[in-house]
Amino acid sequence: MRDRLAACVNVRPGMRSVYAWKGAAAHADEVVAFMKTRAGLSETLAAALKARHPYETPIILHLPVAGADPDTTAWMIAETQAPPVG
Amino acid sequence: MRDRLAACVNVRPGMRSVYAWKGAAAHADEVVAFMKTRAGLSETLAAALKARHPYETPIILHLPVAGADPDTTAWMIAETQAPPVG
Amino acid sequence: MRDRLAACVNVRPGMRSVYAWKGAAAHADEVVAFMKTRAGLSETLAAALKARHPYETPIILHLPVAGADPDTTAWMIAETQAPPVG
Repeated sequence: MRDRLAACVNVRPGMRSVYAWKGAAAHADEVVAFMKTRAGLSETLAAALKARHPYETPIILHLPVAGADPDTTAWMIAETQAPPVG
Repeated sequence: MRDRLAACVNVRPGMRSVYAWKGAAAHADEVVAFMKTRAGLSETLAAALKARHPYETPIILHLPVAGADPDTTAWMIAETQAPPVG
Repeated sequence: MRDRLAACVNVRPGMRSVYAWKGAAAHADEVVAFMKTRAGLSETLAAALKARHPYETPIILHLPVAGADPDTTAWMIAETQAPPVG
């Protein structure tokens, strides 16, 4: 947030996960975080998250949006840095 | 729902948010709502939501789907109005 | 999971739903499950889920991703079967 890579982070605890890890099934109580940003910042944001995350392999997916309310878009642009060019 | 703009609304409390607002970081306990409808109704639904929402800028995003179970699609169509033409 | 149709399942209880069913409004406390897999397995996974689900019409949507962290992608491929050909 301080680096203006995301306009907001929504954290939701209370997620029960069953996942495969190196061929075996594992269980965990996990937290999911939704980070809202511009598409052009998603790789930079993912790298920043990964550098700070306690997991060896945090599951990081980029979810596309098909549209947004105009005020949501204006807020997102106002609160994030311009994506790197090129 | 009464106006058949959405087939269902899923509300999930317990979301902890950190967000940027006018350049400063803010924290809030928030609720997220997922509204399932036809793509052609998303703008009408968003306007109806915004008219009723207590926030000055509710964050409204349109999430696309790549596909659905045929019965899910049939249910969605049966329970929502036909989108406005043109 | 045993059939390697999904790399992980995230289950989140505590969802309050209002939905239309055969023209009437209904309320329910529901659970949402996010299943992460390859796009080519989504139909097979949906059929397997539907065969085991207690609902007559479980709502099954396929959410696309615009991208993923490379390690997330490698994990997903390692932990799921190759999609059926053709």
